Amino acid sequence: MPEPLVDTLALIGIGLIGSSIARVVKREGLARHIVVQTRRPETLARAEELGLGDRYTTDPTEAVRDADLVIACIPVGASEQVARAVGPALKPGAVVSDVGSTKASVIAQVAPHLPDSIHFVPAHPIAGTEHSGPDAGFADLFRNRWCIVTPPPGTDTAAIDLVRRFWEACGADTEVMTPEHHDMVLAITSHVPHLIAYNIVGTAAHLEQVTESEVMKYSAGGFRDFTRIAASDPTMWRDVFLHNREAVLEMLARFSEDLSALQRAIRFGDGDALFDLFTKTRAIRRGIIEAGQETEAPDFGRTPGAGKPAEPGE
Amino acid sequence: MPEPLVDTLALIGIGLIGSSIARVVKREGLARHIVVQTRRPETLARAEELGLGDRYTTDPTEAVRDADLVIACIPVGASEQVARAVGPALKPGAVVSDVGSTKASVIAQVAPHLPDSIHFVPAHPIAGTEHSGPDAGFADLFRNRWCIVTPPPGTDTAAIDLVRRFWEACGADTEVMTPEHHDMVLAITSHVPHLIAYNIVGTAAHLEQVTESEVMKYSAGGFRDFTRIAASDPTMWRDVFLHNREAVLEMLARFSEDLSALQRAIRFGDGDALFDLFTKTRAIRRGIIEAGQETEAPDFGRTPGAGKPAEPGE
Repeated sequence: MPEPLVDTLALIGIGLIGSSIARVVKREGLARHIVVQTRRPETLARAEELGLGDRYTTDPTEAVRDADLVIACIPVGASEQVARAVGPALKPGAVVSDVGSTKASVIAQVAPHLPDSIHFVPAHPIAGTEHSGPDAGFADLFRNRWCIVTPPPGTDTAAIDLVRRFWEACGADTEVMTPEHHDMVLAITSHVPHLIAYNIVGTAAHLEQVTESEVMKYSAGGFRDFTRIAASDPTMWRDVFLHNREAVLEMLARFSEDLSALQRAIRFGDGDALFDLFTKTRAIRRGIIEAGQETEAPDFGRTPGAGKPAEPGE
Repeated sequence: MPEPLVDTLALIGIGLIGSSIARVVKREGLARHIVVQTRRPETLARAEELGLGDRYTTDPTEAVRDADLVIACIPVGASEQVARAVGPALKPGAVVSDVGSTKASVIAQVAPHLPDSIHFVPAHPIAGTEHSGPDAGFADLFRNRWCIVTPPPGTDTAAIDLVRRFWEACGADTEVMTPEHHDMVLAITSHVPHLIAYNIVGTAAHLEQVTESEVMKYSAGGFRDFTRIAASDPTMWRDVFLHNREAVLEMLARFSEDLSALQRAIRFGDGDALFDLFTKTRAIRRGIIEAGQETEAPDFGRTPGAGKPAEPGE
């Protein structure tokens, strides 16, 4: 096994992302010691049962004291509170990073609380599932996914390099961009998709003409696809929308404008407009498959008949 | 193998659905003879290469002449033209069915062209993938999916029974409802989800701030889920929207109203409203999994790192 990238890694938060980092770091030997911190004692106990770290604490100050690399794996709305708590306890020269889905807000929350001797390199691995908590993580979560790094101007290049090498060793490809551009890109590739998924699931649950039971039974016509991301962690996603408000509202306005045009095409029977759009969108999926970000298998590779409990004799 | 349900089955159209029916009918021995009809000679030749039927023709009149059961597997907008062509050629007592995603419109298009001696039992198997054409079908497509049967009032009960038994032998569960109710249920469980998926993929492709290449690279944050159904057959889906206009517009209005409320919650920082919705939507997915209509595996069971071409040595 190669030399570890860092001596002591502190993970602040041990949910889906934090526990996936812990698992891949252990498997690849990327750190000599892993300190796991989380606020809830039950979650910490579960992390210890799963053997995710070498040391466990509910105290963030205690967690970061000896750490060379600290990664906050928490809902973005908790960033300021954590930064305020750990700032004075950080080891001089330590690198602080995070995995938050919004970057400008995290920088605004965190940077003021870090001493000058600390290198802050915000990052965002674009990976996840609809499950959450320390049991949900797995070592291959970041494999072949992108991790976007958004260092503020003037950040130490060695620190940026460490964070990039860390994520690459976790299986990801890395890219550097400004926090503002990141927030715009993610608004359209992640935040608005989540919002409209949450929204249509909510709409379907509150109709008078169609029962919730019918919605569930007949969901294989397309609806069920949306329920996956609408089952994502509520706290994390509430924070994303509150902390990337401007970009989300801007992208949402574009979505709604385009949807109004489609609505009008349906109302007035403009089949050509519908056909043209539906033809173009096929090419985008093809591009995503070619970019290595999606499976080519039909129906995401779902097993035919997926969901049915095996019958006796099957 | 049990006695076939029908002597001669005619499939009008041999795309994803028609070819899946052909495959399961062959595997289960549900018909003594399968006649395959499609307009395009290339598609017919491909169906023959795949061995999907026992007889092949581009002429719908010729296809239905000896058929006891005729199933139209065509875009709903082609229903009237096909009914007009085959009506006079149908064998007295034959049962005619279809697989269209809208039912009131199909009935209005087809019923006037069928002689009194014909039993018309419209049906809609809620199953599919984003692929199309005769190569895309597979025998397990209907396994554990629902097929909704929408017989007009006064339909012969033996004919209804035949169509239900046929679909159950194909692996589906069946349910009877009115065409109007079907159209409302499918508007929310299938048609509007497709529309908003097509729409967001279109929006993402036409932004100034974010390139199409960035959209593809960073699509694993949620966007790529939408591209699957936005890659569905353009002709089929154009017809669905044109032929279920009222129900789609009604459900779309509800969706947009709810989305405006969410937009307002984001604008004014109402985290509780977001959190409440995001918590409720998790339960809907749980219900769909419990209803046997979705896999429990995280990320639809996608392979971690899905999409990456294997590297040398892997």
